[in-house]
Amino acid sequence: MNMLKNIPAVRNMEKKEYQSVMKGLENKIGELQRKAVDSKLPVIIIFEGWGAAGKGTLINKLMMSFDPRGYNVYPIKDPNEEEQMHPFLWRFWTKTPERGRTAIFDRSWYRRLSVERLDGTTAKKDWKRAYHEIRTFEKQLVDDGCLIVKFFLHISKKEQKKRFRKLLANPATEWRVTKDDLRHHRKYDEHFKVFGEMLEGTDTDYAPWTLVDSKDHKAAALRIFTEITGRLEEKLSTPAIEGSARRVSAKSAPAAKSIIGESDLSLSMGRVEYLENLKKYQGRIRELEHEVYKKRIPVLILYEGWDAAGKGGNIRRLAQSLDPRGYEVIPVAAPTDVEKRHHYLWRFWNRIPKAGHIAIFDRTWYGRVLVERVEGFCSSMEWNRAYDEINETEKQFSDYGAVIVKFWLNIDKDEQFRRFNERRKNIWKQWKITEEDWRNREKWDLYLRAVDEMLLKTSTLHSPWTVVESNCKLYARIKTLKTVIESMERAL
Amino acid sequence: MNMLKNIPAVRNMEKKEYQSVMKGLENKIGELQRKAVDSKLPVIIIFEGWGAAGKGTLINKLMMSFDPRGYNVYPIKDPNEEEQMHPFLWRFWTKTPERGRTAIFDRSWYRRLSVERLDGTTAKKDWKRAYHEIRTFEKQLVDDGCLIVKFFLHISKKEQKKRFRKLLANPATEWRVTKDDLRHHRKYDEHFKVFGEMLEGTDTDYAPWTLVDSKDHKAAALRIFTEITGRLEEKLSTPAIEGSARRVSAKSAPAAKSIIGESDLSLSMGRVEYLENLKKYQGRIRELEHEVYKKRIPVLILYEGWDAAGKGGNIRRLAQSLDPRGYEVIPVAAPTDVEKRHHYLWRFWNRIPKAGHIAIFDRTWYGRVLVERVEGFCSSMEWNRAYDEINETEKQFSDYGAVIVKFWLNIDKDEQFRRFNERRKNIWKQWKITEEDWRNREKWDLYLRAVDEMLLKTSTLHSPWTVVESNCKLYARIKTLKTVIESMERAL
Repeated sequence: MNMLKNIPAVRNMEKKEYQSVMKGLENKIGELQRKAVDSKLPVIIIFEGWGAAGKGTLINKLMMSFDPRGYNVYPIKDPNEEEQMHPFLWRFWTKTPERGRTAIFDRSWYRRLSVERLDGTTAKKDWKRAYHEIRTFEKQLVDDGCLIVKFFLHISKKEQKKRFRKLLANPATEWRVTKDDLRHHRKYDEHFKVFGEMLEGTDTDYAPWTLVDSKDHKAAALRIFTEITGRLEEKLSTPAIEGSARRVSAKSAPAAKSIIGESDLSLSMGRVEYLENLKKYQGRIRELEHEVYKKRIPVLILYEGWDAAGKGGNIRRLAQSLDPRGYEVIPVAAPTDVEKRHHYLWRFWNRIPKAGHIAIFDRTWYGRVLVERVEGFCSSMEWNRAYDEINETEKQFSDYGAVIVKFWLNIDKDEQFRRFNERRKNIWKQWKITEEDWRNREKWDLYLRAVDEMLLKTSTLHSPWTVVESNCKLYARIKTLKTVIESMERAL
Repeated sequence: MNMLKNIPAVRNMEKKEYQSVMKGLENKIGELQRKAVDSKLPVIIIFEGWGAAGKGTLINKLMMSFDPRGYNVYPIKDPNEEEQMHPFLWRFWTKTPERGRTAIFDRSWYRRLSVERLDGTTAKKDWKRAYHEIRTFEKQLVDDGCLIVKFFLHISKKEQKKRFRKLLANPATEWRVTKDDLRHHRKYDEHFKVFGEMLEGTDTDYAPWTLVDSKDHKAAALRIFTEITGRLEEKLSTPAIEGSARRVSAKSAPAAKSIIGESDLSLSMGRVEYLENLKKYQGRIRELEHEVYKKRIPVLILYEGWDAAGKGGNIRRLAQSLDPRGYEVIPVAAPTDVEKRHHYLWRFWNRIPKAGHIAIFDRTWYGRVLVERVEGFCSSMEWNRAYDEINETEKQFSDYGAVIVKFWLNIDKDEQFRRFNERRKNIWKQWKITEEDWRNREKWDLYLRAVDEMLLKTSTLHSPWTVVESNCKLYARIKTLKTVIESMERAL
């Protein structure tokens, strides 16, 4: 049944009682918000609903109870040009709040399932897919500790008409009713059905909808304030469940054969053959860069690999012949303090290439299941969850049309030892080798296990891993070039 | 004389000698870049010049010597919609490199003095003013420790024609010659004059131009690599001059009478009068919000004041009646580590409102001459320089059309003591008071001196300070509302 047909009624209140209850709620929300800051709880509050349902006024009322240092309000309109050249969740991911802050969305990602669907600005396959993408998005945030509160402000067709009429009658408020508003009003019944579908399809246990009868402004305000205080209190009183999760995941370790172990590190290439191939492939890749630019295909090239496996030199050969206006090398180091206050995927969402551009990531989001796992920078529950999260995210990029190429640059332990020593001796390379490299080397077996599990769990059809045998650097460079070329050609 | 008529020639080299020299320079640049990272030196390298002069190829060659973890390349094209709704330097300020990083600009802010002027996309008064704005921008960055290297790649009309022809003759490169390129080529002589003017008007001792004869690709590369290594070496060997500056500025303290001292803190307002005024002015300000939105006027409202002067409550009354889609409250706390790695104005440039929007800053860039000065978070040379830097910056916002309103919320020491104690006792307000507040209070006289100097040195015609007598909160709230309204009305 359409959820909009079944909105709980709110008891009427005398003015005096309302004021007293409201005052109490306002103080309560202020207090809870400060607790959320202390507990580093990120909060998302979404306002969706009919035109003229009173979103603006209610949001402003809510903001007044909040410490301005703790929240941001994001009014969501049509995506701009830049936003259109990214997957649709991009502009929302980049706005997710850091730990301890609240993001209030005046309309949100639900535009895609409502306005964009109804106005036909989004293709059917895209808004259909958005159901899954949105559920996944919200799940990932909630899993990371975020509280999501979603309001839908409802008014009847009759009430909406009345409100538009009143606004239009006054020259000071007339401008607030747009042509789109009136057009949407005429299609109220169709919208009613579509909204109902949207609500039902995205009403999850981790991020449920709260339907608000917005005919009476005060009753709506009470409903909203009560819901927010309730949800905040509940969330703030829930203890973290890290401990038990750690136990579970210790059991779920894979017993698979080693993928890395099967890689043939004797593969090599002579310099003459290398130079010939290099010239040929570099020329080809420059052509392809132009092709993907014309066809607006984004390309993500991800590099992971052992220390000293030759990532830098490999990336250089790939980038050398590209037009700098079309690609970017994104080096990934330890997260900054701002980045640490967000979901670990946030900093990558901020850097994904726009349509037609190539992004070369020197280390990637796979850090979550490699260094963060091995060094204990995240809990086992977190890195275990990350395989799915990463697969889902890459699926979204791929569905958006992106080409994804993932390289594991593989060398063996002896070769690494040789290269470390060479670096130590060569005055031009000394800067490349640190104590940390030697320490990481001692954890080779732990890393090996993590790499194997990663390759096993995140090699997908749309985003496969390529293990690059890199004991011979020349061979490795040509293999990556060739792989990139083939992937781009397939997409074109 | 037009600087383009006098470009130094470069000695021809045999291929072998070139390769050997170039190899040395490449290694040298890599080494210097790593030193720049260690010394936390921010570097900006600009490439301007004629179409088909080889910018792309030369930039790519340069990038290959750099560690990808240390630089970003920014190709600069027409400003997008978002960028057009900000002062023209906004999109460049937000791209200035953090300490230790290099930003390479493929075209830059010089577009305004060249292409935009020539194509008539920027009004004469705007590009005329841009000369000063650009010199100021570069000066501020260099004063902050940044190295700026600017290249202009020159080719003759004949050479340009030859290159375009060659590109057009090949189907694989034809697309690289745009209609604009050909149109610009036909106007070569006019452009020659305008480029000459641009170079002369922005060739400063702190950010000089390097003119590069780009006819021969190798000679151009040598010139560029030599210049960059030279400038980097020079900069990295220059010791900081903080010590001496600190001495100088200690002398330059002002002996002026206290502006703050003259503020009449007995001013007050009764509750009845207050509520009447509040209703009237809040209504008016909502109307004005819509007016400035329609006329695309950005509004900056800056709040500074003593601890417990009532900034929060004051801002709330101002924001209460605004449409949340049109304004944002920007709380300014201690800078994050990313922000600390940039010029102190960077984080504010990132937050200035777009045309038609209102930004309310809860604390501001004046922190530089208040808390940073008093607590010693920056050197005396730095905060002394800040008065001019801030005046210049506000002038740019004002020239862009922004309304700027600056409030100092003033209370006396006794009133602060009363409020601190009240906060300590009131269960709802306890969170507002910390040990730090009491510590700051002990430095009252130091702050008083800093506030006075600030008011004296940064009250300008386009951006005046308003001291708000705030011992009576009601009076203060009405005065700020009224002042904002008057400033907006004047602008409309």
